[in-house]
Amino acid sequence: MIDWDVHNSWSAAQELLPYLDPYHRDALVRGELPGGRHSFPHAHRPWLHPEGFMRTDAVPEDGGPPGSDYDLLREQLLDRYDLEYAILTGEEGIEISTLANPSFASALARAANDWMLAEWLARDPRLKGSLVVAPQDPVGAATEIRRLGGHPEFVQVLVSSGAQRPYGDPFYQPIFEAAAEVGLPVAAHLGGQGGVNANPTGCGPPTFFWEAHALLSETGMGHVASLIAHGTFERFPDLRFVLIECGVAWLPALLWRLDADYKALRKETPWLRRLPSEYAAEHIRLTTQPLEQPKEELHLWAALEAIDGERTLLFASDYPHWDFDDPERVRLPPAWRERVFGENARELYGLPVAAATGG
Amino acid sequence: MIDWDVHNSWSAAQELLPYLDPYHRDALVRGELPGGRHSFPHAHRPWLHPEGFMRTDAVPEDGGPPGSDYDLLREQLLDRYDLEYAILTGEEGIEISTLANPSFASALARAANDWMLAEWLARDPRLKGSLVVAPQDPVGAATEIRRLGGHPEFVQVLVSSGAQRPYGDPFYQPIFEAAAEVGLPVAAHLGGQGGVNANPTGCGPPTFFWEAHALLSETGMGHVASLIAHGTFERFPDLRFVLIECGVAWLPALLWRLDADYKALRKETPWLRRLPSEYAAEHIRLTTQPLEQPKEELHLWAALEAIDGERTLLFASDYPHWDFDDPERVRLPPAWRERVFGENARELYGLPVAAATGG
Repeated sequence: MIDWDVHNSWSAAQELLPYLDPYHRDALVRGELPGGRHSFPHAHRPWLHPEGFMRTDAVPEDGGPPGSDYDLLREQLLDRYDLEYAILTGEEGIEISTLANPSFASALARAANDWMLAEWLARDPRLKGSLVVAPQDPVGAATEIRRLGGHPEFVQVLVSSGAQRPYGDPFYQPIFEAAAEVGLPVAAHLGGQGGVNANPTGCGPPTFFWEAHALLSETGMGHVASLIAHGTFERFPDLRFVLIECGVAWLPALLWRLDADYKALRKETPWLRRLPSEYAAEHIRLTTQPLEQPKEELHLWAALEAIDGERTLLFASDYPHWDFDDPERVRLPPAWRERVFGENARELYGLPVAAATGG
Repeated sequence: MIDWDVHNSWSAAQELLPYLDPYHRDALVRGELPGGRHSFPHAHRPWLHPEGFMRTDAVPEDGGPPGSDYDLLREQLLDRYDLEYAILTGEEGIEISTLANPSFASALARAANDWMLAEWLARDPRLKGSLVVAPQDPVGAATEIRRLGGHPEFVQVLVSSGAQRPYGDPFYQPIFEAAAEVGLPVAAHLGGQGGVNANPTGCGPPTFFWEAHALLSETGMGHVASLIAHGTFERFPDLRFVLIECGVAWLPALLWRLDADYKALRKETPWLRRLPSEYAAEHIRLTTQPLEQPKEELHLWAALEAIDGERTLLFASDYPHWDFDDPERVRLPPAWRERVFGENARELYGLPVAAATGG
């Protein structure tokens, strides 16, 4: 079983100090930090979780943040569910997208990636890494992708779903060019709300955390439409785009609309050669968590069938967050299990079967 | 058959001059008009339809805008489909929500409503009107609702789905108070993109018209979540909210998420007493056009069954716009026809059966 969204964390942002150049190290030592000393610099979203974000049983014995203790992560996730691979997505790394200063954001990304490589990926062959980049600094992001993207322990480029503009926008072109060059998928993980990024809905800022959380799928919808419309998958025919934690059941409705609108007005984007739904089927992958919970299971399954869920979904648990999906309780059509819980991810990254058990 | 979205138009905005007070009349006579002389003041959206917005066969003989000639509208719509009622939504009226000046926006709303009453609603008993208000001026909007909302020819309050903030926000409270007082539903019609309003997606501005058009459902999603979360339907238990032209197939996925997030974090909104999906079933109505076009009809029908489409959908044609839905070609479960094509709308507004044929 492969888990596509596992959050490992630093105990404190000061763990990044050895990986920062002196100029940016100074910002972490002497500069303003929004959460006080030891916090990581980003513009925190204005929707505050009323219970905190974490599984309370995932706090390590030393009182550090959930996800910061490898042994506990191994016990509660890797061994408990006998995972073949856990794809680490970090904890706060993607939140750099909310910062106004692009070069500071890229410096933090470099430090987070070097820390990930040194402190986590060497530890256990089951752990694979995500290469965080700052989308507001496309050239810096491309440089980082070329610097570390060839390393076999990194399996994807990672940005937040919150963004200033949709990812098909020409502004981001260097990121996709570099990802295609090193042969990595680009993934957008839910997050990056607030700061310089757009409001996460199409009608301004929601109010409550649970309201906003249910609407965050909207951040992903815009990226899917944008990447397709701009012809990203015509320019980079091997590129895959993975949406993490944005939900899945909204995709059929969006693709039906995109197909109909494209058919009527295809003159606007003559570089496209296929229907939006055809690009999506080949190039877009979605992780399952948090899987929608309908009253009637068959209503969800019909939606997932409409997007060929057996081939487009990747299982993710979101460990150690509050809304963790236990793989034993995720309800999908039983015949899809092998692909969604492993084969799709293995194909996407060319991962070898059965990594040795680490620890 | 009742058609919930029929666009009647002025031939030129100068038709509104008799209905404007001298101060605002001056703005239409001497002020800057974004489309040149005879145009209506609003901040046009930055996504331009590559073919224009109208059915080319709906241009009247005098060359005026489609929807501006009653006889043609009667021939092409009312008589052609033997409509019992056509709910007029105007053409540009709702775009006042994009203007920076709230009192100018409200003045234009008043003029548009008086024009609607004098020039259209007296003409044919099959025509019913929408009372346009400026959402960026909640107190002015409430005054307008109390001024004309009791008139039996107006069946709903109308705003654009594009907005500065989601409509559950306390900022808009006076509008819902007044609508509840006069007993009218509040409807949000697709539109109002650009100007002072929010970008229509959760990740900044899309690029192309067809891309943006497919994403405009996102403007409606945020309003549904916001109205429910803020307890609007607890405060106004008889209030109904109608989303016009925002699509329908996305609603189940959103409600599944809202229900799950509310169940987990209901402490944040203790004034709620029911699940989001239960408020939606009772209080939210959606018009059908543009009905999503899936590859497999049953995939759409499963989605509509999940929101009890037989009771929550209202047929709309969007005459005379480019993406008009011919009622003879709208594919819905046959058993739902009576309710979706008439009964639901009749109940919502207490409309009498079989208006006399007008003309």
